[in-house]
Amino acid sequence: EHVAQLKSLKTKLGDKGDEAPGKFVLKTPKGTRDYDPEAMAVRESVLQIVTEAFKRHGAETIDTPVFELREVLLGKYGEEGGKLVYDLQDQGGELLSMRYDLTVPFARYLAMTKVKNIKRYHIAKVYRRDQPNMTRGRYREFYQCDFDIAGQYDLMLPESECLKIVDEVLKKLEIEQFFIHLNHRLLLEGMFEVSGISPKLFKTVCSSVDKLDKSPWAEVENELLKDKGLNPEQTKKLGDLVRFRELNPGVSNEELIKKMRNLPELSGNAKFKKGADELEVLIKYCDLLGVDSLKFEPSLARGLDYYTGAIYEAVAPHAMDEVVETESGLPAGVGSVAAGGRYDGLVSMFNPKNNVPCCGVSFGIERLFTLVEAKLKKKSTTIRTKQTEVYVASPQKGMLAERLKLCKQLWAADIKTEFPYKANPKLLDQLQYCEAHQIPLALIIGDGELEKGVVKLRVVATREEKEVPLANLVESVRDTLKQLSSP
Amino acid sequence: EHVAQLKSLKTKLGDKGDEAPGKFVLKTPKGTRDYDPEAMAVRESVLQIVTEAFKRHGAETIDTPVFELREVLLGKYGEEGGKLVYDLQDQGGELLSMRYDLTVPFARYLAMTKVKNIKRYHIAKVYRRDQPNMTRGRYREFYQCDFDIAGQYDLMLPESECLKIVDEVLKKLEIEQFFIHLNHRLLLEGMFEVSGISPKLFKTVCSSVDKLDKSPWAEVENELLKDKGLNPEQTKKLGDLVRFRELNPGVSNEELIKKMRNLPELSGNAKFKKGADELEVLIKYCDLLGVDSLKFEPSLARGLDYYTGAIYEAVAPHAMDEVVETESGLPAGVGSVAAGGRYDGLVSMFNPKNNVPCCGVSFGIERLFTLVEAKLKKKSTTIRTKQTEVYVASPQKGMLAERLKLCKQLWAADIKTEFPYKANPKLLDQLQYCEAHQIPLALIIGDGELEKGVVKLRVVATREEKEVPLANLVESVRDTLKQLSSP
Repeated sequence: EHVAQLKSLKTKLGDKGDEAPGKFVLKTPKGTRDYDPEAMAVRESVLQIVTEAFKRHGAETIDTPVFELREVLLGKYGEEGGKLVYDLQDQGGELLSMRYDLTVPFARYLAMTKVKNIKRYHIAKVYRRDQPNMTRGRYREFYQCDFDIAGQYDLMLPESECLKIVDEVLKKLEIEQFFIHLNHRLLLEGMFEVSGISPKLFKTVCSSVDKLDKSPWAEVENELLKDKGLNPEQTKKLGDLVRFRELNPGVSNEELIKKMRNLPELSGNAKFKKGADELEVLIKYCDLLGVDSLKFEPSLARGLDYYTGAIYEAVAPHAMDEVVETESGLPAGVGSVAAGGRYDGLVSMFNPKNNVPCCGVSFGIERLFTLVEAKLKKKSTTIRTKQTEVYVASPQKGMLAERLKLCKQLWAADIKTEFPYKANPKLLDQLQYCEAHQIPLALIIGDGELEKGVVKLRVVATREEKEVPLANLVESVRDTLKQLSSP
Repeated sequence: EHVAQLKSLKTKLGDKGDEAPGKFVLKTPKGTRDYDPEAMAVRESVLQIVTEAFKRHGAETIDTPVFELREVLLGKYGEEGGKLVYDLQDQGGELLSMRYDLTVPFARYLAMTKVKNIKRYHIAKVYRRDQPNMTRGRYREFYQCDFDIAGQYDLMLPESECLKIVDEVLKKLEIEQFFIHLNHRLLLEGMFEVSGISPKLFKTVCSSVDKLDKSPWAEVENELLKDKGLNPEQTKKLGDLVRFRELNPGVSNEELIKKMRNLPELSGNAKFKKGADELEVLIKYCDLLGVDSLKFEPSLARGLDYYTGAIYEAVAPHAMDEVVETESGLPAGVGSVAAGGRYDGLVSMFNPKNNVPCCGVSFGIERLFTLVEAKLKKKSTTIRTKQTEVYVASPQKGMLAERLKLCKQLWAADIKTEFPYKANPKLLDQLQYCEAHQIPLALIIGDGELEKGVVKLRVVATREEKEVPLANLVESVRDTLKQLSSP
């Protein structure tokens, strides 16, 4: 409580400090940024891979307004989250707030439309009044990318498709050495039960246990003893269980579950058994689907405010190693790139009588943007921001009409074409433009060519030139582009 | 002033009336809507055609935050527009407002980044606190789709590319009988000058003249005489000039300009001459580029708050005839589907020393969504919301593992595939799902097929079935899909 007050005071001071009263500074709002063509090109390439995966799995997409009635969001994000919601000013109408995530709007949509079955994705920006200095690298406006399956279905089948999609996307994005950690709420509840930990402490103990991916057990145990009120006997028992993957590193998922089932303390626990039964089904389905990145991890314990069954999180522990300081300011070594699980209480937030079971996954899409951007920058000096294939150039004056006619022909053939907006451009400028924008082909026309009924086709990278009859222009350009793009 | 007060009072009452205090109604904010999978599928198909055209012309894309510092928007939209800006609540930081269009953020971006040349498009939602009852069918959250060319270039070349893009997009969208009306600020200024109309009245007289596309001259003249303070001599002169297209319907653009030039009253006017010279250049370029929808229209007079040169507006007078009442509530017979022009004062709004000349075009993208939606609904009963190509079904129990293995194979081959989330689904349900979602192929597997090492491939529309060896599964599916999609 006291800490929160101090934080809020600091927040106010921090924000006030940003403003230079009376002086107009040309900037974007705090915590937001413009996306220039380079950033957009990266985003587009990542989102294309993600949406292609969603569509390959038969997903539909929906969109909801960027703001909701304040009542819709109220009380959905806990005390801390609620403070970070952007409110709109009361301008004599309804009280509105900006969406904080895509899940609550999805729940509102399902409750409102009474849709009972949907496999949908939603890629859109959300808004949180985070303190950028407090959570380094987090923006106040950022994309979320959610895929969810709502409906009453057979055990673990929707979950298996979520995990398959995560596996496909991360492989297509060439994320190195990723794992999908897997756990289950009932497993955690069972482990806590046999460790003698009160169900009341479930959430708070989970939040400590979940730190095991970053902190050693000694630190986590210390927190459990000092801040969470556990005794050494409890932490000893719990530590042996939640660290079971750590203590058995080379063991397959099936074997690890079996080993845990056979532990004397767990063998009689009904919750653990039910969770283990369910995970075994999911692991079997994932094997059949070729999801080989799956790793059962009994210490995974996040999002348990709302997850009711299986939970999963994809991590790429080394992917960020080389991204020390990026444009987006993300810290290195932070590895979570997707997370999700089953949450069956979603729609009942709005209508207790009309519930719809759900599971889903949310990609850490901003992080994936950063990873891909860093990789592209390592590979080549420039990121292509336009897809132009042909530049219609001229070495001499008076060729504008001819150039426009050539453009018309190429555009009609769906060839991506540009021309200089100058009546009499210099050839050097034109070729430099091609190099700067990595345009593969220049089409050069002058009096000499015109008389012969040809154009010169120049491969920008190699400076090779060949003459091509005007009558075959489109075919020649297509063939040359095909040759250039094949390795 | 009095009218504005009444309006504002009405607004308040209207908004208050919407709220049922104490009772929580599950809805989206006033003037906003959710987009269900069907609406999204239409939007995606339209936006794909538009973005493909932009990319074919070498455009890049940028994005800016959904809100801006309030100071950035302040005073940019006139008195009326300013009232419609959504403000965010002061939560102890900067004062923010939601973007009202994409033009001012673009200007802010150019001023801030000092970018001197860019051909960019921006497709994003903007926010206006319009009264839906006052402007029927207008949403408070809606897409804008802007293409602009910023930079110092030769006369009319950027404009010609804007017009070419409009022509391409509307043809690809199969909008019937559209024209791109063309005019020039200097032509209007010249016509007003020789009619003896004070430059001070330029904007207000333009707003009357611009109504000529919907109202007869008698009405417009009446408004000019009664409300705008012109005398009959002035309106007589002006009417003969701005209706020159109406009075010469069959005449080509070049001839019409020539005829106007030869009018004794205009032949000596320098402004008219300069405007006519420029338009002739643009018309010539458009001819070379194959923009055959261009129609010089001296009564086109919109957006003259900021346009400084050529102005244009694409209209499809009959496209909406059959869209009497659509889901989005747009009235029938409203024909503007794209508009733009040259506006050279853009960036100097923020930095008088650093100006960047611009021209561009904004598509009436919400209207285009409506038109395409109406057309699709007329053609077929259902709009495809998912792209699934194959549904992996089974007529009997115990086939789940086999089905998952088939899915794995198809997804790996990038074939869009779904399967029922049931261990033992009914065949009839599965085939109905295919029909409901227009999935072209069902892949059916049972014990019989399994023994023979085959699967049954069923064309959902014709109910034809054939057996296909499992070894050739991917090839067979691809071939059959190809056959089905070729006419």
